[in-house]
Amino acid sequence: MMRAYDIIYKKREGQKLNKEELEFLINGYVAENIPDYQMSAWAMAVYFQGMDAEETANLTMLMAKSGDMIDLSPIKGTKVDKHSTGGVGDTTTLVLAPLVASAGIPVAKMSGRGLGHTGGTIDKLESIPKFNTSLSRDKFFDNVNQHGVAVVGQTGNLTPADKKLYALRDVTATVESIPLIASSIMSKKLAGGADAIVLDVKTGNGAFMKDLKSAKKLAEAMVEIGKELGRDTAAYITDMNQPLGNAVGNALEVKEAIKTLQGKGPEDLTELCIELGSGMLQLAGKVKDTEEGKNILREKLNNGQALAKFAEMITAQGGNSEVVEDLSLLPTADATFEVKAERSGYVSEIKALDVGVAAMILGAGRENKESKIDLAVGLELNKKIGDQVSKGDTLAILHYNNKKNLEEAKQKLLKAFTITEAKKEKNKLIYEIIK
Amino acid sequence: MMRAYDIIYKKREGQKLNKEELEFLINGYVAENIPDYQMSAWAMAVYFQGMDAEETANLTMLMAKSGDMIDLSPIKGTKVDKHSTGGVGDTTTLVLAPLVASAGIPVAKMSGRGLGHTGGTIDKLESIPKFNTSLSRDKFFDNVNQHGVAVVGQTGNLTPADKKLYALRDVTATVESIPLIASSIMSKKLAGGADAIVLDVKTGNGAFMKDLKSAKKLAEAMVEIGKELGRDTAAYITDMNQPLGNAVGNALEVKEAIKTLQGKGPEDLTELCIELGSGMLQLAGKVKDTEEGKNILREKLNNGQALAKFAEMITAQGGNSEVVEDLSLLPTADATFEVKAERSGYVSEIKALDVGVAAMILGAGRENKESKIDLAVGLELNKKIGDQVSKGDTLAILHYNNKKNLEEAKQKLLKAFTITEAKKEKNKLIYEIIK
Repeated sequence: MMRAYDIIYKKREGQKLNKEELEFLINGYVAENIPDYQMSAWAMAVYFQGMDAEETANLTMLMAKSGDMIDLSPIKGTKVDKHSTGGVGDTTTLVLAPLVASAGIPVAKMSGRGLGHTGGTIDKLESIPKFNTSLSRDKFFDNVNQHGVAVVGQTGNLTPADKKLYALRDVTATVESIPLIASSIMSKKLAGGADAIVLDVKTGNGAFMKDLKSAKKLAEAMVEIGKELGRDTAAYITDMNQPLGNAVGNALEVKEAIKTLQGKGPEDLTELCIELGSGMLQLAGKVKDTEEGKNILREKLNNGQALAKFAEMITAQGGNSEVVEDLSLLPTADATFEVKAERSGYVSEIKALDVGVAAMILGAGRENKESKIDLAVGLELNKKIGDQVSKGDTLAILHYNNKKNLEEAKQKLLKAFTITEAKKEKNKLIYEIIK
Repeated sequence: MMRAYDIIYKKREGQKLNKEELEFLINGYVAENIPDYQMSAWAMAVYFQGMDAEETANLTMLMAKSGDMIDLSPIKGTKVDKHSTGGVGDTTTLVLAPLVASAGIPVAKMSGRGLGHTGGTIDKLESIPKFNTSLSRDKFFDNVNQHGVAVVGQTGNLTPADKKLYALRDVTATVESIPLIASSIMSKKLAGGADAIVLDVKTGNGAFMKDLKSAKKLAEAMVEIGKELGRDTAAYITDMNQPLGNAVGNALEVKEAIKTLQGKGPEDLTELCIELGSGMLQLAGKVKDTEEGKNILREKLNNGQALAKFAEMITAQGGNSEVVEDLSLLPTADATFEVKAERSGYVSEIKALDVGVAAMILGAGRENKESKIDLAVGLELNKKIGDQVSKGDTLAILHYNNKKNLEEAKQKLLKAFTITEAKKEKNKLIYEIIK
């Protein structure tokens, strides 16, 4: 008879768990035959002893299968999903979905709400008047088949094993394990029905993975899982040593996404979307190489087709697509405040997490599940790493509705910036691509 | 504000926990503010990262203080407690208590019942007709003051933190951690009120610590705790590669203890009792060195004073002290069965655990808390490591009341013996003394 004790012991001793053992553990945990205190001991043993590629893939598949497995086969073509490991000011999904769809690749995207500095993609989209993120499964498929793209909130009972295990890891200091992080992310992608996956693994002071080495390990672990489970996966290790783009906040990020789709977005956000989008086109078999994909996507931004696709998607989901021409239709904060540089020099560092916290202080994010987001508030960075500033120059513009927390947000933002005499070179945007 | 999460995290990262953090953890766990799943993750982190001497001592004291702390000050003199880490056929307490008391050192011994191959000291003593192990605290102290010795069952709420944590470790594969084992043992000794402690750390195939290296680590950790907390502690690392003495079973072990007190006991049991007893005399300040202590104790065995002290203790606790002269007054099994050697040669190995299991199969031990012990059954070894045997010689005598399990016990016992052509030298009885 199998016992959870023996499985914990085996992992503690650094041995490999076979599929039957993992199945016993994960299914038993979801069925509440195995208690939290055994799972947390096991998770800590995994933290120290790791798991090999086969174990990690087996765990991933078991967690995916613990709940609904979405069948995307009613949608024609190769369904390529994209996932980012999270950062500050990450607006890529809003740009990528219509951009890739405009190049003829179906984008059936399910996204979440955010618990963090700003909302998630679904929160952001809800700043578009009347935009509906709760489509029925059939309507979702129909929209993708008809318009090439739809972005909806997650429904159904997806990966309950992962949800339960993640909540436990979160309170037992067992989150920071590469195989556990990798299997958690990949199990959701598998349950979501993806044929292929592009991963944006952020690294830097604003990312979950602070250093390149651990980001690379995570990327490799996820690509390996994809290989084991027959899902083409490409991982892009990208910079999060400062916020991506300039906007941090829900409606502000939608505005920035629209500007980017108009071909007038921030350089870093634009470049990253083109790079990740090209990866999606490659996995879908649409293009032969990176350059071909990038050229197509650049053209889509320049000729207005990407923006038109976004408008089409908004209309198809009941929203007011006039927003793509008239940004004032989006929620706007009552007032703005310019944070000025207190000395001259070059921006050498922007602590992305502090910038995120400043936005959250203004009301852009949720501190807990019950918090209500103010979609209008947030901030825009005027200066990024490498920029020259003179004392009194505007570093950032805070958008606020409530003056109460303004001073705190301002101080947080000022603290985020480091200005030095010597010029700091810009960080690379993409460090490595692993496939 | 302190959080269990941060304490787990800190230990996971290999950092030292301070007294306040351990206090928060242990007191919070006992008060049920900290759930099992956080404690088991912490225990697994301790398994991998260890604890230093100060941490271990702090944990020990916190667990001791989590319940009643027995105050032995009504008993005159230095109270030296003795603890064995457990083995097969370990009858030392039954011999040591009257032996050391006969040399003028007070022995106030609280013992437990056993969950294992045979009962614990309290179970064994209850095979003496009318012997009362449930004295009131006052009566217990009076007996020690008047007669120099009393052995009673544990009462009161001793070390609830250790009980709760041990039960959790037992099901989460976190038992085998030197600092956790050491603090568990020492917390009980501290709560029991000992001024000084002699530890018998068993090593070998029948012990919890299979190899000398880990036994030594455990011994060092416990002596270190004693130092930190101001309790003179000496640890004897002793052999458990075969059962100690010849008897395994409750009444059988009492008989063997009486024979030993008569000066006619097995060599290994006698030698170990004299050695550990000398250690107790030294810690009590009664003798200057090991030899002096051993000489005194040998004399007490030879001149009948140790046996007389045992009789005195039995009488004082309401038992029939005639047993020390007439072993037939003790429970006796209905029948015996001689297990014969199947080949000639030398006994080169006796797997102590298998011998223990054979005794348990006959009914000498508890498989779980509800099991009833048969005090009369068990076995006696006729041959030990190094002995020459001819095919057909009796290896052991099984004492049984129920024929049903006899064959199984016999097979188990035969399996325990390895007989080889080459003579195997006897193991050392005492490997090392750590103080």
